[in-house]
Amino acid sequence: MLNEMKSRFAGKDVAVIGVGMTKFGELWKKSLRDIFVEASLKAIENSGVDHIDSMYVGTMSGGLFVGQEHIGAVMADYLGVAPIPATRVESACASGGAAFRQAYFEVASGHSEIVLAGGVEKMTDGADVTEALAAAADQEYEVYNGITFPGLYAMIARAHMHQYKTTREQLAHVAVKNHKNGSMNPNAQFRSPVTLEQVMKATMVADPLRLLDCSPVSDGGAAVIVCSVDYAKKLKKPYVKVVASAQASDTIALHSRESLTALKCVSVAADKAYKQAGLKPSDINFAEVHDCFTIAEIVVTEDLGFFEKGLGGAAAENGSTAIGGKIPINTSGGLKSKGHPVGATGVAQIIELYEQLTGNSGERQVKNAKYGLAQNMGGSGASCIIHILEAV
Amino acid sequence: MLNEMKSRFAGKDVAVIGVGMTKFGELWKKSLRDIFVEASLKAIENSGVDHIDSMYVGTMSGGLFVGQEHIGAVMADYLGVAPIPATRVESACASGGAAFRQAYFEVASGHSEIVLAGGVEKMTDGADVTEALAAAADQEYEVYNGITFPGLYAMIARAHMHQYKTTREQLAHVAVKNHKNGSMNPNAQFRSPVTLEQVMKATMVADPLRLLDCSPVSDGGAAVIVCSVDYAKKLKKPYVKVVASAQASDTIALHSRESLTALKCVSVAADKAYKQAGLKPSDINFAEVHDCFTIAEIVVTEDLGFFEKGLGGAAAENGSTAIGGKIPINTSGGLKSKGHPVGATGVAQIIELYEQLTGNSGERQVKNAKYGLAQNMGGSGASCIIHILEAV
Repeated sequence: MLNEMKSRFAGKDVAVIGVGMTKFGELWKKSLRDIFVEASLKAIENSGVDHIDSMYVGTMSGGLFVGQEHIGAVMADYLGVAPIPATRVESACASGGAAFRQAYFEVASGHSEIVLAGGVEKMTDGADVTEALAAAADQEYEVYNGITFPGLYAMIARAHMHQYKTTREQLAHVAVKNHKNGSMNPNAQFRSPVTLEQVMKATMVADPLRLLDCSPVSDGGAAVIVCSVDYAKKLKKPYVKVVASAQASDTIALHSRESLTALKCVSVAADKAYKQAGLKPSDINFAEVHDCFTIAEIVVTEDLGFFEKGLGGAAAENGSTAIGGKIPINTSGGLKSKGHPVGATGVAQIIELYEQLTGNSGERQVKNAKYGLAQNMGGSGASCIIHILEAV
Repeated sequence: MLNEMKSRFAGKDVAVIGVGMTKFGELWKKSLRDIFVEASLKAIENSGVDHIDSMYVGTMSGGLFVGQEHIGAVMADYLGVAPIPATRVESACASGGAAFRQAYFEVASGHSEIVLAGGVEKMTDGADVTEALAAAADQEYEVYNGITFPGLYAMIARAHMHQYKTTREQLAHVAVKNHKNGSMNPNAQFRSPVTLEQVMKATMVADPLRLLDCSPVSDGGAAVIVCSVDYAKKLKKPYVKVVASAQASDTIALHSRESLTALKCVSVAADKAYKQAGLKPSDINFAEVHDCFTIAEIVVTEDLGFFEKGLGGAAAENGSTAIGGKIPINTSGGLKSKGHPVGATGVAQIIELYEQLTGNSGERQVKNAKYGLAQNMGGSGASCIIHILEAV
């Protein structure tokens, strides 16, 4: 089966050769284009390339957040790289992962040699953020009836607590761990650790989720440079190899699913990714996962196969997902602490993988990491994009 | 040079094996998802495939038009094809061309065998259409100061009239020809021919552009099935080959360009496309071009190399671009008469190429056509995507 799968991929091997991001947070003095250009210039400089052939920009809703679509062209213009091809891709909060995947395809197809994959979102410019984010849910059947994302994930949390005896404390442990990791990340929006008690007593948002269970509203940009492995070798600079790119979809509405406690888009994409890479979950040394809410990290770590179904909460509580644990999760601080400028998140996950796999993560370094996995998700799980990167 | 270029493309040869679209127009009884699903089911049925591996959706602004982002997942769900990967791509009015290009890359890379590329827009659902479309221009420097697209293209028209003595009548001839072609297209929004006098006396929109110089506000969807040429051969059904996919960008703002009368994104992308295909402009037998306004068709046919710079207006007047002329342009009716549901337009252009190249265009058939070119454009020319398809 493995040989069969591998034989299907006739394309070139693909590498990541440079990364750059802005600090995530409330970037009042920077516009959407400022943020993207800052991250992209850092990535270009970091990679050492003298040009790029093409670029992708992941943005969830330039239209609703700042009234700007045609994001690819805007960014190519302000980055000073026109007339190269520039395309925006959108998959709600998985837009960054989608941008990286399109860059992967373009390089794998042999059509371009060096492609920039970036993501950006400017969420603090005055738009109704909750309403804009709700455009990632089912507008006709969910949003119209009044629900938004904290409510959707609260239902997932309640169902998981009911079905698997997951506790309120276990949810809080995710936040505590991710804030601790984020405190060591200079680009994180929140660099302050939080205590279990602080999470447990935070303002209620949507029962059982409290303020510190929720990722914040953020501005930010992230970019990586993608090229063929052959080209990366010639550059003689650190690079990592992309050994899997997988994506899956599910019903847009949460109420249409067979289960509230399992994310099918995650397990389907993970299965494809492991097959493409010829790996199993236990081969993965660390992962960045889509912790838009604490419950999401618990469900996702189960559906990625890192823990048995129902034991994700216990894993967060017993330290299995901490740096130094069985499988460190969200060493960057995750969406929870690093911030969640929605279009940038998936690319920022790739950046954390690159930095860990090239040994540049400072005090949050995972030792002897060979394989890192990035799991980026849209909506309440209607889309999921997974990449596995390998140190070389 | 040609061999050098060709040798860069290591990927698989790519084919189009089936097409489907809705009627374009004011589709009051159909929602965004209804429209996309209708077009996609037709394309799947037309191609004869029993599944698709992945899909792309070109949509300019689901957010501003109908409050729905996460378009890829929504459409996969309602098409009944989840959990396959589904991604929305956006390049303003070139979103459809961008979706087709991403499908091309995914197949060329060997990552997927059968990919659906669709485009859709629902523009008549109550949004402020002029404001939503303006999100394709420079929000910070153009739109903020009050200009919208009719004004931008009116400036291009005035400059072209000044520089090349292009006449008001020549602009009108584009509309007359495209309405005549559209009258023969059952899927066109406007199937009524118009006279030169009607165009010349139509309500002024932005001097010199009158109502009949402008493409309409439309709902509509279009989809095509893309696969490798190897797979297409096995199916033993009609297919056409994709011999070039090229894209270019330019400044987002019209005022930043060196020239108002030439669209650099078009000439740069055309140059790349001709090189990839090993063709010159005179090898192309017919083309679908982005006539969002009559002046756009004139400028684009020059910048594609079909006519000398400045002679695009004369070509429209003397019949060179009519069916039976030197190079038939917009045999489908173009955006002007067929309609312009912005995200769907680029895919609908590919459909016209497929139907012409497989000899299924009925009374608007171009005789002995071997090569067709589709030129899809975003904004006032900040992005352009060109594909060349070959009959087999």
